[in-house]
Amino acid sequence: MKNPITFEILKESTDSLARVGVIHTPHGDIQTPSFAVVGTKATVKALTSKQLNDINPEVLLANTYHLYLKPGSEILKMAGGLNKFANWSKPTMTDSGGFQVFSLGKAFGKNISKFTDEGGENEENKRMEKAPFATIGEDGVAFRSHIDGSDHFLTPEKSIEIQHNIGADIIIAFDEPTSPNDPIEYQKEALERTHRWAKRCVEYHKSKPNSEFQGLYGVVQGGKFPDLRKESAEYISSLDFDGFAIGGSYNKNDIGAVVNIVNNILPKDKPRHLLGIGEPLDLFDGVEAGCDTFDCVMPTRNARNGSILTKNGKINITNTKYREDFGPLEEDCECETCTTYTRAYIAHLFHSDELLSNTLTSIHNVHFLVNLVRNIRNSILEGSYDSFKKSFISEYSK
Amino acid sequence: MKNPITFEILKESTDSLARVGVIHTPHGDIQTPSFAVVGTKATVKALTSKQLNDINPEVLLANTYHLYLKPGSEILKMAGGLNKFANWSKPTMTDSGGFQVFSLGKAFGKNISKFTDEGGENEENKRMEKAPFATIGEDGVAFRSHIDGSDHFLTPEKSIEIQHNIGADIIIAFDEPTSPNDPIEYQKEALERTHRWAKRCVEYHKSKPNSEFQGLYGVVQGGKFPDLRKESAEYISSLDFDGFAIGGSYNKNDIGAVVNIVNNILPKDKPRHLLGIGEPLDLFDGVEAGCDTFDCVMPTRNARNGSILTKNGKINITNTKYREDFGPLEEDCECETCTTYTRAYIAHLFHSDELLSNTLTSIHNVHFLVNLVRNIRNSILEGSYDSFKKSFISEYSK
Repeated sequence: MKNPITFEILKESTDSLARVGVIHTPHGDIQTPSFAVVGTKATVKALTSKQLNDINPEVLLANTYHLYLKPGSEILKMAGGLNKFANWSKPTMTDSGGFQVFSLGKAFGKNISKFTDEGGENEENKRMEKAPFATIGEDGVAFRSHIDGSDHFLTPEKSIEIQHNIGADIIIAFDEPTSPNDPIEYQKEALERTHRWAKRCVEYHKSKPNSEFQGLYGVVQGGKFPDLRKESAEYISSLDFDGFAIGGSYNKNDIGAVVNIVNNILPKDKPRHLLGIGEPLDLFDGVEAGCDTFDCVMPTRNARNGSILTKNGKINITNTKYREDFGPLEEDCECETCTTYTRAYIAHLFHSDELLSNTLTSIHNVHFLVNLVRNIRNSILEGSYDSFKKSFISEYSK
Repeated sequence: MKNPITFEILKESTDSLARVGVIHTPHGDIQTPSFAVVGTKATVKALTSKQLNDINPEVLLANTYHLYLKPGSEILKMAGGLNKFANWSKPTMTDSGGFQVFSLGKAFGKNISKFTDEGGENEENKRMEKAPFATIGEDGVAFRSHIDGSDHFLTPEKSIEIQHNIGADIIIAFDEPTSPNDPIEYQKEALERTHRWAKRCVEYHKSKPNSEFQGLYGVVQGGKFPDLRKESAEYISSLDFDGFAIGGSYNKNDIGAVVNIVNNILPKDKPRHLLGIGEPLDLFDGVEAGCDTFDCVMPTRNARNGSILTKNGKINITNTKYREDFGPLEEDCECETCTTYTRAYIAHLFHSDELLSNTLTSIHNVHFLVNLVRNIRNSILEGSYDSFKKSFISEYSK
């Protein structure tokens, strides 16, 4: 049987684990490294698919938990899958919903603290800390919907079934994420359960016809502990996955080190996705540590708060000084927003609570991150990665 | 001195006052009859100028009161005017702000009841009834900002000065609107003040260089009283205006009759704008009564509430039955929304509180109304108006 997802390496760095490649999927190729745009509920917030096509990201990542609760994965199946539902013709991914079950879903019964992001920008992480009750059994997780309080039970098999209904090119095994603050005993317990669930995900997936056109990624966890990360990378590598996702649960400064350990073990010939990472400087670390794709809600979430990514660092467009600034959000940027609107206009939209603010700033921020990773890719291909990185960081951190 | 606004009649109906024409403005031609899209705060809510260009309305109408308070008309002047600020290259209009001063601005000191819309869809009208205090003097109106409670004083001259800063092709004289419920004594008093203010607007406007590239419309008021409407149309016609706007303050059923009286008096060779009217059936009445342009917030406001204009009447897309409906919002519609998204997807966006819902439904509703009036125009040119109207109403009212 032909693999639905194949990975081709075009160039490898001699200084790091960085590589340039192509992931071939049923909906076309993903040129890697690349930044996956997040469309949690099958919509990149405030953007039409036409606007998204103009920005031209390689891949869109939607969320299993959210789509399972609303509109229900059967609706996506009836629509002909995520691509048709969201009017998006290029490759797609869904995560497993594990993270959201523990963070948004008011899982109950067992007192566990969860995943934190020291960056402080991820509201889901913050909520995770506020929902410290989960009933985790060997079979799966009982949780309560964050929308209507209804009770649900998600198992590895159920998560894959939902992801089959949604129909993304790349789907992700159901896992149990932890927090960097969790004690090693719990982290080890969660990791071993994640491994047993991984095996069940592979078995269920491979038994279904969808495995012919949807690739399944296994999730490597293990927190900040090198031994657990090694154990996880080795075990997950031993299963018949089409690629790998690396879960969070480390402190920001550990990303490079932890991910390096993992990617030195994972097989080189399969693609690797780094979950939930999108800060510009972290993306350089992730690429150097051998990751191929990335996703993060940061660009669109920041956009809606007026926080704009520019080559000179973030600016907040709601600041009074931009009221009379008739330049673009970012000098020389080629996105639709920067080529047509001024800072003064966008500041006015924010001060007047106008919906268009969300669209214009999201276009820019998504364009910025997609093109940052695309430029990283090109610099590796051209052999100019080091100077590109140095120059970017020097301007960005000024 | 050349007139900034000229009007050319291409065809006149033999059965009614309807006419097809072209208003020539500094930013290009307005093919009439046409529906002016409302961009109250220099933004058609939730739409980029690119999306608006695709819909291709003839003219955009912004609001003097709102832009005066935020961002301030000096900002628009610094930007190079409304067109540059909002990135809109085609013709523009601003209303005088009179209506909003009395409705949104908490004008104070004199107990007057104001403008009501029996259609019930205009929130500004509803607010007007809740803000029954105004200090109206011969010189102008004192009011309080609805945003921060700050005190302001608007005179006819000040309104024109603000509209000069904003820089629209067509600007409107400052008037005192009334409610259909007001007694005739007060309506008469308000009308006479509106007339004295109209004269001051013309004098101030003509004394400024902006009158070379901005055309000024006078406002005909008079409520539901034929005698007052006649008096107003005669007086306003006698002043050196470039066109006319007809103010509301009648019951819905009176629109045709009242506007007919007015347009039988107004000079034929100048354009006529019917303020705040946008319901499909009312647009037919307005065209037959001899109006050339129309504006209304209805299409975008309805859109944001999920109320969709279709040739078979309005539907509410949040209705449960649309969850599994994979057809377009409106069969055979050629707008971006209908050619790319399904009812099921848009229903999902509403049920999930996703911002994109506003954009997609606004694209459709604005496209619907702009093209309805464009089709009315074409049917008059082709001599098929009666059958077009009959067929539209029969489908729409089914």
